[in-house]
Amino acid sequence: MAERIITAEELAQQLRAVSVAEFFEKNRHLLGYENPTKALITIVKEFVDNSLDACEEARILPDVKVVVREVAPDRFKVRVEDNGPGIVEEKLSLAFGKLLYGSKFHRLKMSRGTQGLGASGSILYSQLTTGKPAKVTSSIGKDIHEIELMIDVNKNEPKIISHKQEKNPNKWHGIKIEVETEGRYIEGKQSVMEYLRQTAMCNPYAKIIYDGPAGKIEFERGAKELPPLPREIKPHPYGVEVGLLRRMLAGTNSRNLTGFLTSDFSRVGRNSALEILKLAKLDGNKKPVDITHDETVELHKAMQMVKLIGPPTDCLSPLGEKLLEEGLRKETKAEFVVAVTRPPSVYRGNPFEIECALAFGGELPQEGGAQLFRFANKMPLLYHASDCATTESVIDTDWRRYAFSQSSGQLPQGQLAILIHFASVWVPYTSEGKQAIANYEEIIKEMKLALQEAGRQLAIYVRRKHKMKEGQMRRELFEKYIPELAESLEKLTNDKKEKLIAGLEKIVKRNGVKTDGEETGNDKESETTGK
Amino acid sequence: MAERIITAEELAQQLRAVSVAEFFEKNRHLLGYENPTKALITIVKEFVDNSLDACEEARILPDVKVVVREVAPDRFKVRVEDNGPGIVEEKLSLAFGKLLYGSKFHRLKMSRGTQGLGASGSILYSQLTTGKPAKVTSSIGKDIHEIELMIDVNKNEPKIISHKQEKNPNKWHGIKIEVETEGRYIEGKQSVMEYLRQTAMCNPYAKIIYDGPAGKIEFERGAKELPPLPREIKPHPYGVEVGLLRRMLAGTNSRNLTGFLTSDFSRVGRNSALEILKLAKLDGNKKPVDITHDETVELHKAMQMVKLIGPPTDCLSPLGEKLLEEGLRKETKAEFVVAVTRPPSVYRGNPFEIECALAFGGELPQEGGAQLFRFANKMPLLYHASDCATTESVIDTDWRRYAFSQSSGQLPQGQLAILIHFASVWVPYTSEGKQAIANYEEIIKEMKLALQEAGRQLAIYVRRKHKMKEGQMRRELFEKYIPELAESLEKLTNDKKEKLIAGLEKIVKRNGVKTDGEETGNDKESETTGK
Repeated sequence: MAERIITAEELAQQLRAVSVAEFFEKNRHLLGYENPTKALITIVKEFVDNSLDACEEARILPDVKVVVREVAPDRFKVRVEDNGPGIVEEKLSLAFGKLLYGSKFHRLKMSRGTQGLGASGSILYSQLTTGKPAKVTSSIGKDIHEIELMIDVNKNEPKIISHKQEKNPNKWHGIKIEVETEGRYIEGKQSVMEYLRQTAMCNPYAKIIYDGPAGKIEFERGAKELPPLPREIKPHPYGVEVGLLRRMLAGTNSRNLTGFLTSDFSRVGRNSALEILKLAKLDGNKKPVDITHDETVELHKAMQMVKLIGPPTDCLSPLGEKLLEEGLRKETKAEFVVAVTRPPSVYRGNPFEIECALAFGGELPQEGGAQLFRFANKMPLLYHASDCATTESVIDTDWRRYAFSQSSGQLPQGQLAILIHFASVWVPYTSEGKQAIANYEEIIKEMKLALQEAGRQLAIYVRRKHKMKEGQMRRELFEKYIPELAESLEKLTNDKKEKLIAGLEKIVKRNGVKTDGEETGNDKESETTGK
Repeated sequence: MAERIITAEELAQQLRAVSVAEFFEKNRHLLGYENPTKALITIVKEFVDNSLDACEEARILPDVKVVVREVAPDRFKVRVEDNGPGIVEEKLSLAFGKLLYGSKFHRLKMSRGTQGLGASGSILYSQLTTGKPAKVTSSIGKDIHEIELMIDVNKNEPKIISHKQEKNPNKWHGIKIEVETEGRYIEGKQSVMEYLRQTAMCNPYAKIIYDGPAGKIEFERGAKELPPLPREIKPHPYGVEVGLLRRMLAGTNSRNLTGFLTSDFSRVGRNSALEILKLAKLDGNKKPVDITHDETVELHKAMQMVKLIGPPTDCLSPLGEKLLEEGLRKETKAEFVVAVTRPPSVYRGNPFEIECALAFGGELPQEGGAQLFRFANKMPLLYHASDCATTESVIDTDWRRYAFSQSSGQLPQGQLAILIHFASVWVPYTSEGKQAIANYEEIIKEMKLALQEAGRQLAIYVRRKHKMKEGQMRRELFEKYIPELAESLEKLTNDKKEKLIAGLEKIVKRNGVKTDGEETGNDKESETTGK
């Protein structure tokens, strides 16, 4: 017993804080660095995502250049340059040298990055594996700043190694970042090349130049205009929990409760605010900071009871059916492509929107399972497919209804490619590496609806094609026997063989057309009852 | 252009740090809180894991009591009590009220918790959903301290609401923790009950009492002795990257390089140290803090080149074949169980050990896929099976070699249960919620070796059983015709029918035995060549 008591005090000696940087250095796989191949892709991805976000936000058509050079076996220099707005000097080292530091976490607006872990995570991994600092060059159009920095892992703070300031006669603006890292270069399905190819597909207004170990390739700009800038929104009352509400009450600038409700939330007008206050039996003139815990609980309850319209959706920037369709057609060289953009929906107060596209036939592989392309906020997801809401929604959809075979728990079979895009102010990734979307029920439901809508449209085409093929085969078979039949008929009817053949061929053609028409009709019906 | 420059400065305004608590509040699914059902299980799991860790560390046979009470619809009080060493008062609020704070992160030694995110994460989720503080009672055998605390989310610091100190005449020691949380209670495959049942299975020296909405149940202690305490080890040179080596050099207490190598690493004796220094062309008398970046790189290279024995493995605490076998037999009521504990192995310098057990027949379900029980450091893993190294290793194993049918990419079919236990000083979980093991190659390889070894043993039993069944059927068929055959023979030979029947029956019996024996022999051979 005496020994045990000593142990408790000994144990206390070991209790201490862990810096976020230490945590992610040790758990680097959470950020996407579990092996050298993936590490290289992740680094490129994080820098490119940041460049695209920054350009879009500043309304600049993105020009992004990616250079990957092998400097020693399994050791690479990665450089990414953009023509974005740049980062002001005072924040430059923090933006790259501190984990959980960024501009995108505290706002509700669709963007690629969210966590302030991307670029800093890449620098963390590079310095861990090679011990080398990162080089960051930035200008906002004034002087050019070039810093070399490392992350002080124990403190999670940037450590500036060198700083150069230069004149900028050409008014260049943007960011150049260069790291040296352990990595492995591959081509194929999960590669830097594939990541950039899919990125170009989903971001046709960006020009991306890739200069890698296998040569240089340019993804040309396919659209000359940026999509509309998504707008930042306030939280919707339906998506706020008690704990967060308490914190909002404590931190608000509003001087009374009515003002708090109307100005700190979206979709709460004066009438809704009064209704909420009445239900919660609270005085609208009360100071937010004076609200007790029990009153907060009542207020929260009332907020969930009052009928409000959904959150505004101009915080989202979906791709649209046209772009999706073009992108997937170009990618797959399929013979038929259909795209569906669903109306926005909401989970936990966060607006989101699902888009999908299906491609069939053409140059798609004849055998094997369907191909699945997954995107979240215009970023390709290359990893962890089996644990992603996109995959689950495809598996849960009954593809036999849409003329494809499918084993239980599997992707459908056939000459099929499926693209799903999840656009939201907040993407619930399964890990900080942003590689898969968590299986929230509301999200899977919307994905399935999108797939079903697209599936129905595709099925009409696929069935008609099957039928035409069958009709064709029947016709060919019949045509083969026409001369023989005509000879027999000639004997019976005294009509000329040639005339009979012409007549029979006419019947075949007419029947062929008629059969198709009929069966397409049936098809539609069975589709309706099948639903 | 002018507008863009303004934007960069505006953007800078939005750049700010994100507290770890804010990050995990928003990304709560990373900690296992994506829905109310899972939230309730996760809270119980985090508290119970901590209790078991604390008791084992202080060499106390664990007595853990779990109480779950529904206090309103979808709202629960969860209380977990243990008889562990307790936590000293000065660290109590930090241990529970600050994320990334703990005793287990900075050491190499097998334990359930690692990150300092478990209990504090549960409190974070509870206060978010109900706004209520957590109540923590602790004693190290001296006075009893009871505090109510919340987490200041913006700062990631504990906020003490109340503190009571009481005499402790009975010298009680341990922790009681109680939270009020949103949740949903279910029974079945992924439930609090199932989690505790599997925990009891893997921790037979713990007594666990569960008092839940469906009644009270006690998991009795099945073993009276604690397993040996795993020992803390130093990092192995093969598992240290350049970046970490630099940090170790900067932070060491050793006054020279030779001392640093021999005392800060495991398995580096004086001779190995001299060999490393020679390869790196470094003077062993140099101060560690004076080593330049380039010298660090050389040192690191040399450390990887020198031949060293693997890290010590007394930092691990596997279950052992006997315990595994008993546990799985009890759980499944199977007719045949086999268990395999592999020798320890290493990835990135971290020792780990794989154990597996296979159960066959008996009360296992006749149809459907095999059941898979997954454990990491004696904790059951209930979620994210599809993204787990355990599942991948089972799928990658060719079960047709072991007499089970299996479709490509699927678990095997049949009356089979599979248990895999991953024991390591550091488990690479796929997320902070500790629900699945990341797909590191070295880990999957070891798992497959364990499964193959167990599979071979099981296959011998299963094939013999199949053969016996076949032999039995043949015998029965032949026996049916014996009287008829005897009658014909009687006429031919003049022997008595009864004598002939007896003779024929003897032949059947002998043949039956012989056939089995032969075929088992063949079986072994084909097994060998099949490898």
